[in-house]
Amino acid sequence: MKNTYGTSVAVTIFGESHGEYIGAVIDGLAPGIAVDNDYINHMLLLRRPDGKISTPRKEKDELKIVSGVINGKTTGTPITILIPNEDTKSADYSSMITIARPSHADYTAECKYHGFQDSRGGGHFSGRITAALVAAGAICKFALEQKGVYIGTHVKKCAGIYDREFEDYINDIKSLSVKTFAVLDDSKTEEMTNAIIDAAAKGDSVGGVLETAIIGMPAGVGEPWFDSMESQLSHMMFSIPAVKGIEFGKGFEISDMKGSEANDAMKIADGKIVTVTNNNGGINGGITNGMPIVFRTAIKPTPTIFQPQNTVDFKNMTEEILEPKGRHDPAIVHRARIVQDAAAAIVLCDALTIRFGTDWLR
Amino acid sequence: MKNTYGTSVAVTIFGESHGEYIGAVIDGLAPGIAVDNDYINHMLLLRRPDGKISTPRKEKDELKIVSGVINGKTTGTPITILIPNEDTKSADYSSMITIARPSHADYTAECKYHGFQDSRGGGHFSGRITAALVAAGAICKFALEQKGVYIGTHVKKCAGIYDREFEDYINDIKSLSVKTFAVLDDSKTEEMTNAIIDAAAKGDSVGGVLETAIIGMPAGVGEPWFDSMESQLSHMMFSIPAVKGIEFGKGFEISDMKGSEANDAMKIADGKIVTVTNNNGGINGGITNGMPIVFRTAIKPTPTIFQPQNTVDFKNMTEEILEPKGRHDPAIVHRARIVQDAAAAIVLCDALTIRFGTDWLR
Amino acid sequence: MKNTYGTSVAVTIFGESHGEYIGAVIDGLAPGIAVDNDYINHMLLLRRPDGKISTPRKEKDELKIVSGVINGKTTGTPITILIPNEDTKSADYSSMITIARPSHADYTAECKYHGFQDSRGGGHFSGRITAALVAAGAICKFALEQKGVYIGTHVKKCAGIYDREFEDYINDIKSLSVKTFAVLDDSKTEEMTNAIIDAAAKGDSVGGVLETAIIGMPAGVGEPWFDSMESQLSHMMFSIPAVKGIEFGKGFEISDMKGSEANDAMKIADGKIVTVTNNNGGINGGITNGMPIVFRTAIKPTPTIFQPQNTVDFKNMTEEILEPKGRHDPAIVHRARIVQDAAAAIVLCDALTIRFGTDWLR
Amino acid sequence: MKNTYGTSVAVTIFGESHGEYIGAVIDGLAPGIAVDNDYINHMLLLRRPDGKISTPRKEKDELKIVSGVINGKTTGTPITILIPNEDTKSADYSSMITIARPSHADYTAECKYHGFQDSRGGGHFSGRITAALVAAGAICKFALEQKGVYIGTHVKKCAGIYDREFEDYINDIKSLSVKTFAVLDDSKTEEMTNAIIDAAAKGDSVGGVLETAIIGMPAGVGEPWFDSMESQLSHMMFSIPAVKGIEFGKGFEISDMKGSEANDAMKIADGKIVTVTNNNGGINGGITNGMPIVFRTAIKPTPTIFQPQNTVDFKNMTEEILEPKGRHDPAIVHRARIVQDAAAAIVLCDALTIRFGTDWLR
Repeated sequence: MKNTYGTSVAVTIFGESHGEYIGAVIDGLAPGIAVDNDYINHMLLLRRPDGKISTPRKEKDELKIVSGVINGKTTGTPITILIPNEDTKSADYSSMITIARPSHADYTAECKYHGFQDSRGGGHFSGRITAALVAAGAICKFALEQKGVYIGTHVKKCAGIYDREFEDYINDIKSLSVKTFAVLDDSKTEEMTNAIIDAAAKGDSVGGVLETAIIGMPAGVGEPWFDSMESQLSHMMFSIPAVKGIEFGKGFEISDMKGSEANDAMKIADGKIVTVTNNNGGINGGITNGMPIVFRTAIKPTPTIFQPQNTVDFKNMTEEILEPKGRHDPAIVHRARIVQDAAAAIVLCDALTIRFGTDWLR
Repeated sequence: MKNTYGTSVAVTIFGESHGEYIGAVIDGLAPGIAVDNDYINHMLLLRRPDGKISTPRKEKDELKIVSGVINGKTTGTPITILIPNEDTKSADYSSMITIARPSHADYTAECKYHGFQDSRGGGHFSGRITAALVAAGAICKFALEQKGVYIGTHVKKCAGIYDREFEDYINDIKSLSVKTFAVLDDSKTEEMTNAIIDAAAKGDSVGGVLETAIIGMPAGVGEPWFDSMESQLSHMMFSIPAVKGIEFGKGFEISDMKGSEANDAMKIADGKIVTVTNNNGGINGGITNGMPIVFRTAIKPTPTIFQPQNTVDFKNMTEEILEPKGRHDPAIVHRARIVQDAAAAIVLCDALTIRFGTDWLR
Repeated sequence: MKNTYGTSVAVTIFGESHGEYIGAVIDGLAPGIAVDNDYINHMLLLRRPDGKISTPRKEKDELKIVSGVINGKTTGTPITILIPNEDTKSADYSSMITIARPSHADYTAECKYHGFQDSRGGGHFSGRITAALVAAGAICKFALEQKGVYIGTHVKKCAGIYDREFEDYINDIKSLSVKTFAVLDDSKTEEMTNAIIDAAAKGDSVGGVLETAIIGMPAGVGEPWFDSMESQLSHMMFSIPAVKGIEFGKGFEISDMKGSEANDAMKIADGKIVTVTNNNGGINGGITNGMPIVFRTAIKPTPTIFQPQNTVDFKNMTEEILEPKGRHDPAIVHRARIVQDAAAAIVLCDALTIRFGTDWLR
Repeated sequence: MKNTYGTSVAVTIFGESHGEYIGAVIDGLAPGIAVDNDYINHMLLLRRPDGKISTPRKEKDELKIVSGVINGKTTGTPITILIPNEDTKSADYSSMITIARPSHADYTAECKYHGFQDSRGGGHFSGRITAALVAAGAICKFALEQKGVYIGTHVKKCAGIYDREFEDYINDIKSLSVKTFAVLDDSKTEEMTNAIIDAAAKGDSVGGVLETAIIGMPAGVGEPWFDSMESQLSHMMFSIPAVKGIEFGKGFEISDMKGSEANDAMKIADGKIVTVTNNNGGINGGITNGMPIVFRTAIKPTPTIFQPQNTVDFKNMTEEILEPKGRHDPAIVHRARIVQDAAAAIVLCDALTIRFGTDWLR
């Protein structure tokens, strides 16, 4: 099955943690869209580990676009992005090859690939591959902004510490785009960072919740039944490693509400139909209603920890104690937020192109 | 875009609340699979409103299979299911046509279909259409059981009342298949039912959380990146009306755990690799690991309530007060559980057929 | 795998020769398109056997549309068409069940469906199913005509007798739409009909070549590389039973031409870019150029003949002589032409919707 | 829309004639398949222009595989192939940018990409991109051979000169794999080569017919109706530039035959069901019957010729005389044959994997 997401705008990703290149192909993006390398590099920078609360792996992400862009504009034909891997110390991982790291894909990869998978650094399952997703999504996200569609993700919760709610969507989203640590309430940065450092000090890791808001989406996008806007977004979000849940609008909280509380009353404002509340997160019956699309994902704590763990050697069928080595992140939630932005951008470009045609984005 | 889910086993659904038939086409299901009408009818019965805590609409769901089955066995070619609509009092709905019911698809359907949508009883967006999904899924679910794959869904929470956890998966799942009100702890039936009746008495509605367990899935199924097992299941689940969230394993709770708590240690039991805990819900790296797949969905309270609501007439662009009439459910969570079973069965048949070939299910 | 063609406009077909219904589901067709039952019935009539040069099976094709159309207009949600089977003398076929009819799908169906296929009258492989394709295509074809896109197919050759070339496309296409036997030169009707009758008298059958012209297609439609306009059309045409070849423009003849003869010189006429010749059949690089799309298909002679044939009993693995009984066509080329029209219409609706968005056709 | 072919094994291609790299991503190929660089390079060599009867462009095709292969075996995750472009004299093409070359994609690309397409050397429409297709297909073809499935294509006709028929399939196919000029009757090599040189001397070009045979395909592969084996193969073949027709078995010739002549009688040989003739080219009802799959494609003469041609400047809307410069092929039929082999291999890997599961090919 294919590593391709999308129907009308389609993204294919490839690569392994310790291979020569990781990368992506974007196809179906309209011709004439500006491709801003600074914008892409900025998004890659926000994904990159910074050494203090992330793995010290040095990644320069020197991306090359080798097809589909001329004179800074998309041609309309496939855009190919290559990102070279550097600083790959594969020796660190050599002892892990048949000893499964708990809650990683090592054992499931074995079940699917029968020993032929690249197990160096997680291989094709490495979070490293999300750099390719970010680069592809950055091109899509920039294109959407030219059409008035903006996406922003913040760390809603990390290590049990909450950021504030979105208030002024457009300004909040814009503020996030320049923050290294994506919280709306800047006073939370240090608090969350300290919690991550604290977990790292104990050889442990933490997770969190990411919240994404999308504004400017036209009403009437999404395909009932089986390609509802929620179906499309969730399909993509569960491609991001570590995501174990997604909820739209009030999400799980809505299951405790009464209908009279949960329903979004409607009114007319400035000649447009809007809802008074947005408990449904901008989507009804799988179709956008013009309100902000809001969703949250549950990000699990990084599974690699610096504590001994009970596991198995799946080749020798023996029980083992894993003593991990190598470089790893005590948290990825603060890095995953830009992956979530990028991933959402790909979904929206596809959905909008299906709805309004292949030229709509230019 | 198509109302078809799936690649190798594909289900198409059609129909409107007040049309002549609703139905489904299943294609790609292996030849020679037994089709048990009693089994299908039993699942349809569990979905059907019972009048006390559900809409009094009488639905007999007299399903006909008009292609793809001979002598009680699948032929391997498309299976077409027709369910006639009966007892459709469309007059009840006539006044709603341009006045949007809050949190329903009325307004978004207008945005997508420009006034041509069937607005009688919710038209194509009606929960009625889930009967077709249940019938299609029942055929798939029965086929899976012949291969040792079992699915069960219980009302984990309704109106704030919790059911117990799954304990003995196989027996719990089997017990659910014969319960009208799907709770594992039978003492919760009356409690939840009373809460629903209570909400109804106030002209209000309640939601809940559904939890599904799947056992017997082989390890090694699911396609990274973009067709992870979570991606496939969530894509489908968000096709079910009223679902606003989904989480796997510990789900959102995992985001508050430390890595050392969240990781599923591994061991060998009876010569097989298993995990000690199942916080990841049977899926790592998007691929099944052979443990039970466990996920929960958030079901919103039924949006139709018997209280006046502020809304708009989207044709005349006026603000209105909606005074609903007609027949509606004060809760659907107890009915949606069988839809969730059926929907999951379709996803698994597709995923297993992709993995192991078109003959695997027979 | 699915019996569904298309991405943005998708058609699913189902049914067997001797089942209760055959039918189709069309999804993704824009809302607000007029559905003209007379138009559909007229196309079904042109497909129907007439008794003299076709099987005497009486088919009334009393089609019902049970979803997706209200007040004569598409709603935008799935359109379901049902056509009841009548006059099905299954006894005629009972002896054929394990004796393969040469050049039919009997043996290959066995290889794929392992004995569970419906073998009555060819089951799902029966040409009867094309009635569903015609009904679905008729809705699409009518929609295209409202947008100025016209399709017509004539019997270019039958039993070695040639019809004339297309000359005045629009008038030729319109003339074909009302002809029972689709030739441009009416003097050929009797000649071809006699050849068919002559073959039938000898217990034999004949084939032919169908030529389709499409005018009014906008330039710039088609997706290189893998969804070229030729790829899309040929994919569909090879779904029609009996088609064994397809060629665009000059087709195989172009392989004998020099570049200087084959190239279509370009000029400006009435302010539009056109080609002087149309040897490429309206498509360059897989993309429409605004000229008429012209293609031809090779239709094999009906495989059921009234002569003894050497074959096998695939269950008993014995060699047998087949002495066919039942009702069959000495030719289908004159009936298949309307199937080809319908099939092309589905492809174009899909391609245009992908290109210009889901509302373009309304 | 995506430049991806396939469902279970999927190939994406990218690149432009004068870009940095062309390449391909293959996904879904089973793990553990040997990847033989010599085999791939040999196929690339057969596609490469040789200077005498082809463009003198020097292409080294120094392919790199940057993901998905370790220790010479597929991992099961995406395989990415990069081929650098060299020797790209873009100045040769600079004057053509808005003057359409007749029967090329220049004008249709303008209609689709609105002036943003890469027009250097045909850009994404260049035959150069077929090198990526050949490299991807070479991996698939080698994998098929390990399972006993062999593919071979010969120049059935070039400039009106015919090669002999396939006689001994397995030996004929093997002999083709080592021939630079793929004819079964070696005496035709010089004859066809001289015809090409002769056309070149006159500034003209020639076309031809390619015939492909596939042996070893299991019976029972192909998906009626809409993914018949012919549908799948033709869909792919019309992705190859210059293909204007395809026919299976007797193809267009069958349309002139009587049923009694065309039908393939069946018998039992060595305990297996076979057909006496193979007029249907190994496919009945869209499903393989175990006999050789045989098809032919019509290859048009290279559209670039060295004679003045009437055309238009599509930007300035003026009529122009095109006096072509640059490097071009007086024929591509002898080079396209290996593209056809490769393209067929991709289709078969996909079809077999859908049928028998993702592990079948290993």
